[in-house]
Amino acid sequence: MIVEVLHYTPLEVADIAICKCYGNEPHSDSEKVKARINRVANVSKHASTIEHLNYSFDIDGISRACLQEVVRHRIASYTVKSSRYTLQELKDEEISLSDYLVSTKNSHIDIQNILQLKYVKLKLIEGIPNDIIKYLLPEAYKTSLVMTINARSLQNFLELRSSKHALWEIQLLAKAMYEAIPDEHKFLYDNIIQS
Amino acid sequence: MIVEVLHYTPLEVADIAICKCYGNEPHSDSEKVKARINRVANVSKHASTIEHLNYSFDIDGISRACLQEVVRHRIASYTVKSSRYTLQELKDEEISLSDYLVSTKNSHIDIQNILQLKYVKLKLIEGIPNDIIKYLLPEAYKTSLVMTINARSLQNFLELRSSKHALWEIQLLAKAMYEAIPDEHKFLYDNIIQS
Amino acid sequence: MIVEVLHYTPLEVADIAICKCYGNEPHSDSEKVKARINRVANVSKHASTIEHLNYSFDIDGISRACLQEVVRHRIASYTVKSSRYTLQELKDEEISLSDYLVSTKNSHIDIQNILQLKYVKLKLIEGIPNDIIKYLLPEAYKTSLVMTINARSLQNFLELRSSKHALWEIQLLAKAMYEAIPDEHKFLYDNIIQS
Amino acid sequence: MIVEVLHYTPLEVADIAICKCYGNEPHSDSEKVKARINRVANVSKHASTIEHLNYSFDIDGISRACLQEVVRHRIASYTVKSSRYTLQELKDEEISLSDYLVSTKNSHIDIQNILQLKYVKLKLIEGIPNDIIKYLLPEAYKTSLVMTINARSLQNFLELRSSKHALWEIQLLAKAMYEAIPDEHKFLYDNIIQS
Repeated sequence: MIVEVLHYTPLEVADIAICKCYGNEPHSDSEKVKARINRVANVSKHASTIEHLNYSFDIDGISRACLQEVVRHRIASYTVKSSRYTLQELKDEEISLSDYLVSTKNSHIDIQNILQLKYVKLKLIEGIPNDIIKYLLPEAYKTSLVMTINARSLQNFLELRSSKHALWEIQLLAKAMYEAIPDEHKFLYDNIIQS
Repeated sequence: MIVEVLHYTPLEVADIAICKCYGNEPHSDSEKVKARINRVANVSKHASTIEHLNYSFDIDGISRACLQEVVRHRIASYTVKSSRYTLQELKDEEISLSDYLVSTKNSHIDIQNILQLKYVKLKLIEGIPNDIIKYLLPEAYKTSLVMTINARSLQNFLELRSSKHALWEIQLLAKAMYEAIPDEHKFLYDNIIQS
Repeated sequence: MIVEVLHYTPLEVADIAICKCYGNEPHSDSEKVKARINRVANVSKHASTIEHLNYSFDIDGISRACLQEVVRHRIASYTVKSSRYTLQELKDEEISLSDYLVSTKNSHIDIQNILQLKYVKLKLIEGIPNDIIKYLLPEAYKTSLVMTINARSLQNFLELRSSKHALWEIQLLAKAMYEAIPDEHKFLYDNIIQS
Repeated sequence: MIVEVLHYTPLEVADIAICKCYGNEPHSDSEKVKARINRVANVSKHASTIEHLNYSFDIDGISRACLQEVVRHRIASYTVKSSRYTLQELKDEEISLSDYLVSTKNSHIDIQNILQLKYVKLKLIEGIPNDIIKYLLPEAYKTSLVMTINARSLQNFLELRSSKHALWEIQLLAKAMYEAIPDEHKFLYDNIIQS
């Protein structure tokens, strides 16, 4: 999978918001900004102050199995590759594991999924409609999305999904999202991510 | 699919709420209750007044393809059969279309999905972990959920998903949900459902 | 203030939802229902399972100061007495503390608020529009609302608002809401309410 | 009132999101970006695609009467000047209309509110706690906030609140927010704002 941040809100916006609340002056020093945000949002649990910080992630190459779990986080915005509209792309392509399927590291299962996808391609060539064929797609089928989420909701996402009890692929996604976050924002998540 | 309403809020609660707003007296006559709710929520677009009406649906036998679309409605609550925890049920069962797969009415595709599910069963017997095997599941695989949604969000759901542009299965679901709603609530949706 | 529950979802709905997830059978014994909900939602933190439980509260006689704080809980539905539409009620009434103002238990402040409200009445009689006069209303002015909230969001509300750091009036409201909840639901909140 | 945008998401993020959905290439030409966003989000009503666009507004000098209405828009994030924590500022200041109160353009009402606020100051000097004194505050009392809202929710806000049926002050706020939005984003709201 490939995860990158398309856009994010600078920390200063959360600092200005916090200052509204208590009648303080915003800091210009970035370490002081981080210290105040940490104190108010994380230590004092005034968590809504970091809702002003939004991240738009470009996430490419997760499975639709993983997508099922991602979109259950309802306090976020999603625009996802539509299998109803884009399935035709398979018609003219050589079906390879790396392009279209998330590998399970179990070669028998991966090969079975390639066979299933080759059957999908066959039915596309026959002219069966996408809305019928998509019922064949194995959950390993890759998808792509833009996900916008605020820092408070992202803390919840990363805490739950970096846990060793989470599905292995969403653990990888959580870690890739954490890596993609700009360095000066990482203090918001350092105590939350489980590794 | 089987859809039933486990519980719902009586219309009187919305009527009492509306009366709060404008300082009126709640009606005891059910036709007057319906007329006022229709006037305020639907005609005058004070739509938040029908958020007090909640429905809990028991939905059984939709595909995971359909589930992908259902859960994108974020103003609702979902508890869904976990494929991570329940996959073992396939191990000891004869794999039949009607029990585990939504039929596409295309027999070739349905048979291909049965074969894929028989391969899933084989791998379960071999002892491969659920979290690997679930990547084989075709999107026709049946699931089951409880969905609680308020009347305002349900209006949005039924309008979008009863459209002939929607996926055929979610059109069926929208109509089954509409049918399952108690009769005295149907006026809220009669002008919304597309048929 | 007067707080009562107009309607609520029976615990069995949450139990059925939980059983969906893990493929179990719902209980018929109410103590077993409570034990399972507690184990899943509170101990194992699968908190979304209690979102299926909704309560509609009729809340009468809180101040608009308190309302400012209540409605900041965004995962809930509110229908509130409109000061824009109902202010005329003051025109024909004797202004008394108990009918229209929340007492602060400080007699000087309460008397000052009665005087301010008498000035409001005077301006209503003069025919000044509600939308101008409402800018005079002291925050002690009483309001009334219907609030529908699910059990997960209510746990958050009661935890934050029963704290001794919360505004005294919203502490009273939190406790009155807790008292109004049906007895068999109280186990969901017993470890959360601060007293 | 003073309204400014502290930060906003560039339009390109929504364009990238839309391209995910249908498998298109993002535009580099800004007019084409705007045309596609308008076509997908406004004309075809795929409104979730503009949820990726967030605006953080710094809003200063609206009344608490207006605040009551603003925060009822639940799909947004708010950090508001706390009257519980900041009321002491009145103790050492000359009470003037322009600093602390929104003018109703009715001089009698404005003068009455100044008198009420002078009484507030008196009680602060006497040492009565903020949490008692705040019950005296007239709804004209000025507040300040940071509000972060996405483009979809902002469309709803501006449509409802620029209406001539809305409270006069929130009409002014809606127009000031529209003015503060960056020019290249205004096409999203041009057909929505009522004037």
